[in-house]
Amino acid sequence: MKKIGVLLSGCGYLDGSEIHEAVLTLLAIDNAGAKAVCLAPNIPQHHVVNHLNGEEAASETRNVLVEAARIARGAVTDLRKIDTLDLDALILVGGYGAGKNLSTYAFKGSDCDVIPELSSALQSFYKAGKPLGFICITPVIGAKVLGEQKIELTSGCDKETAGNIEAMGARHIECTASEAIVSKQGKVVSTPAYMLETSIAEVAKGIGKLVTEIIAML
Amino acid sequence: MKKIGVLLSGCGYLDGSEIHEAVLTLLAIDNAGAKAVCLAPNIPQHHVVNHLNGEEAASETRNVLVEAARIARGAVTDLRKIDTLDLDALILVGGYGAGKNLSTYAFKGSDCDVIPELSSALQSFYKAGKPLGFICITPVIGAKVLGEQKIELTSGCDKETAGNIEAMGARHIECTASEAIVSKQGKVVSTPAYMLETSIAEVAKGIGKLVTEIIAML
Repeated sequence: MKKIGVLLSGCGYLDGSEIHEAVLTLLAIDNAGAKAVCLAPNIPQHHVVNHLNGEEAASETRNVLVEAARIARGAVTDLRKIDTLDLDALILVGGYGAGKNLSTYAFKGSDCDVIPELSSALQSFYKAGKPLGFICITPVIGAKVLGEQKIELTSGCDKETAGNIEAMGARHIECTASEAIVSKQGKVVSTPAYMLETSIAEVAKGIGKLVTEIIAML
Repeated sequence: MKKIGVLLSGCGYLDGSEIHEAVLTLLAIDNAGAKAVCLAPNIPQHHVVNHLNGEEAASETRNVLVEAARIARGAVTDLRKIDTLDLDALILVGGYGAGKNLSTYAFKGSDCDVIPELSSALQSFYKAGKPLGFICITPVIGAKVLGEQKIELTSGCDKETAGNIEAMGARHIECTASEAIVSKQGKVVSTPAYMLETSIAEVAKGIGKLVTEIIAML
């Protein structure tokens, strides 16, 4: 059975992983007959956001790995142990956690940094010919780490994000939420999901196609 | 467009809503062409559980409505306002939050209490002939509030839960995760979901059937 890593960045789209995208990824992997292996970095969240009013909860602190465990029903591995898991592919789930916890994209745009354990995992998977999937805003991380490989990525149709992806060396392709883009260069697939104003059913279609394309590459 | 209430009890199966069940319910409703309306009570969680190690995080406090907003992407209404929403049906999502925040079932079994705003909502929907859906452990709440109506409910095949459901006056029917049970009495549908050791794909099938049955009743 193929093992697909699913990288989470917390639990909740404003300060961690986008929950619908995470669950729909787990569903698509199970529907495809593969095994999902959840991962997250063991680091503090950049901050905690009250998802009811959108305001920062300045007195609260949460840990990315501990909160990701809510989505994973406890079954989540520290990202630092990724090399021990014998994964066949890796998918990054969206949400602001990708730009606040996994990288500094939310604050620095194309000048962002990506946390070292993720940067090295992406380079290692790419060099090994293992497929990479980028959902929602996470193509900016792919562009930062692998932009010089001229990979093709989507983030929907937002001009600013598309410009940042191209500024980091990758190529941006427009795409709707119900579709996924396969890069001509490398084994890379992406889908915009909630980067667009869309419905959960459309996001499920796009993520389903992303997972299907990744599994077809194995 | 039909409006289906989806009642949440937090965000995370050990102290709130089971996240997969919640998202799969929202997906099934959207796939059926209906509109999901998320609800949660504006009350403190009974406690906070670290989902990585399963231990209580005794120093933390969280609010059920605020945490439910993570699953609902902010679009969640206080359960006290349910009468203003003109809903056609109501579905209760599982997770320990149902037995810790929505009721005291986790502590008192068949002697439990259900929070008044939920108890009155269930009675009101039942009397109005509006369909009710119970996922996972939430049939115990249905049994407590509507047991004297002799409704039929499932919780999978766990003897203790089945015994408690029958002790509260309802009838328990065994069921697999990929199926849903339609009660002969009243407009009531239930599916066991993660009450059983199962996969997300099976849970998706059972919840899909529950939503299909509920919409067929409208």
